[in-house]
Amino acid sequence: MKFSCQKEDIVQAIQIVMKAVSPKPQTPILSGIYMKAEGNQLTLQATDYEMGIICNIEAQVAAPGEMVLAGRYAQEVIRRLPGTTVDFEYNNQEKMVYITSNRSKFSFLSMEATDYPTIARVEGRSSFQISDVILRDLIQNTAFSCSHEESRPIFTGCLLELKEDSILMAATDTHRLAVKSDTLEEFQGEQKLIIPSKLLNELQKILQSDMPRTVNISCSPTQISFEVDNVYISSRLIEGQFPDYHRVIPVEFKTAITLKTDEIKGIIDRIALISRTNDYNVITMEFANSMVKIYSANPEIGNGEEYGSAVINGDDIRISFNADYINDCLKLIKSPEFTLSLNGPLNSAGIRTESEPNFVYIVTPVRS
Amino acid sequence: MKFSCQKEDIVQAIQIVMKAVSPKPQTPILSGIYMKAEGNQLTLQATDYEMGIICNIEAQVAAPGEMVLAGRYAQEVIRRLPGTTVDFEYNNQEKMVYITSNRSKFSFLSMEATDYPTIARVEGRSSFQISDVILRDLIQNTAFSCSHEESRPIFTGCLLELKEDSILMAATDTHRLAVKSDTLEEFQGEQKLIIPSKLLNELQKILQSDMPRTVNISCSPTQISFEVDNVYISSRLIEGQFPDYHRVIPVEFKTAITLKTDEIKGIIDRIALISRTNDYNVITMEFANSMVKIYSANPEIGNGEEYGSAVINGDDIRISFNADYINDCLKLIKSPEFTLSLNGPLNSAGIRTESEPNFVYIVTPVRS
Repeated sequence: MKFSCQKEDIVQAIQIVMKAVSPKPQTPILSGIYMKAEGNQLTLQATDYEMGIICNIEAQVAAPGEMVLAGRYAQEVIRRLPGTTVDFEYNNQEKMVYITSNRSKFSFLSMEATDYPTIARVEGRSSFQISDVILRDLIQNTAFSCSHEESRPIFTGCLLELKEDSILMAATDTHRLAVKSDTLEEFQGEQKLIIPSKLLNELQKILQSDMPRTVNISCSPTQISFEVDNVYISSRLIEGQFPDYHRVIPVEFKTAITLKTDEIKGIIDRIALISRTNDYNVITMEFANSMVKIYSANPEIGNGEEYGSAVINGDDIRISFNADYINDCLKLIKSPEFTLSLNGPLNSAGIRTESEPNFVYIVTPVRS
Repeated sequence: MKFSCQKEDIVQAIQIVMKAVSPKPQTPILSGIYMKAEGNQLTLQATDYEMGIICNIEAQVAAPGEMVLAGRYAQEVIRRLPGTTVDFEYNNQEKMVYITSNRSKFSFLSMEATDYPTIARVEGRSSFQISDVILRDLIQNTAFSCSHEESRPIFTGCLLELKEDSILMAATDTHRLAVKSDTLEEFQGEQKLIIPSKLLNELQKILQSDMPRTVNISCSPTQISFEVDNVYISSRLIEGQFPDYHRVIPVEFKTAITLKTDEIKGIIDRIALISRTNDYNVITMEFANSMVKIYSANPEIGNGEEYGSAVINGDDIRISFNADYINDCLKLIKSPEFTLSLNGPLNSAGIRTESEPNFVYIVTPVRS
């Protein structure tokens, strides 16, 4: 196996497929990156058995072949090589790969390509297409609400719901729920899938291109794949029934309060310096007289309070939240104002903005 | 006690005195910052018993007094306050300090100022002055060579030597030695002091101003202090006899090699990715035919080698070093070229540059 390629291309490809390399690989070979040179193309693959990533780049292939590039050392070396092109030569007998760029020459012990579990393409029972901008927005507005507790797998994934003319993503950790939807130009079949948030978070990073692109999605009963440009990502789906999120969204609210996004974000940032020293990171919000007072106290440290302006439609109210649950949502909001809707101090609250009518965030208050 | 001050001023002052707050304070009160308001001035103090820092800033003092501001929470809050001025009010009975800025109001449990070990000024047997630029340069070019092993205190400090018309700093961890000197405009008395490198590293950060300033240095047999603008830093000195550094610097070298600073730095950065996986971080340099070959090998990972250009005056030679010991020094060198002087593979090597004749770095090779 012998090929050369642009340093920039292979560095980027390694960075992408590395997202599927577990920091604690199940077997030694999964710490490496599978590489195959053929035609005028280099294919890189990595998997942790749950997620698999394939990335293709252009290469001048002098001798086709395959190998598994071992360990993070080789990857760090490639990133720092002095030249714009990199030459690779793999010696099957020695199991050594020789990497050359300008006057730099490295060799690394490599692993047998035949031992590597290559990633099978998801043979789709169905497939559909979506713009990367829409998909990125769906992920960004929901995936942060997933749980990290592996004991309840359903809550570690996002629901993806495909209906006649709409696509919707929803995520909940049982304390809060985020739902975002968008319209589709044409009917692409009905779907209800639960996708691991870990995959979606990695996918979101790959979708950060400035150029609008189309993402091809395929799914089988247990697997899903995303293909965009030269990158192919596949993952298992989460089995089970996602909770009925409609039931969680209150039909109406007694009080609707309009608040300034940046002002409230700033206040919560400061008050959270106190609240985060408590067990449940609790801040209390008191709405009255066109003002909100936000405060928190820790008897061992001190207190913090601050006022912001508020347009209150409905009854005055005092309600407490986990500070992170509010700020996680405010971080996403681009509008200068948002609406906090309430049904009393012990009932779920809602956050919406006028400019993003397809987004809703529901959060459970804390008893205080 | 009641005062107000500019947020920017107090944030900067807290940042400076915090350098004397140990992450693991010996007693709870040493986790706090002593503050005293008097006249139109606020004095902040912190100490870990080894080092003490005093910083004065302007303040509008409505009621003079003193207190100890507790914990890192208060400091983080002040940094994030929304206004440009901050009001402080300390209530002796409650032992609470009230901090207000715009519509933000925080209160923190504080500690008794009477319990705080105030920092005594060093009553100098002698004192001298030096420009901050010269002092910063002396520290920057030597302190990195100090040892971190507390078991041999002498090597954790820098020697400061004041002679007729020169000031000199030297540091060694026994594997390498850095010496930097400068001229003084007037004779300020002879001195030989060993200053803890921890203090010098913090001092160097404080000396990062663009405006040239004068540093006043005072010393007693056991203490030293540095005063620059509104900041006063004092520290114990290290007792003992600093090794005779003159004996370590070879009088002459058999081979003198001129190398390109950036080229060699880049090569060592890459080859160190291999060498740092070994026990002693060993790289080997082979000089011949107007070239240097730098390489390292780890039988379990692989090899790296790279060539750079070299002007060799003297015999060809092969010599090995700890990669960090070379790169620590190259990082400091501003000249495009430097000279590596050698006396054979087992004798100390020297690094100098033409543009900085007052600096010399001696490093012991590794047997390989």
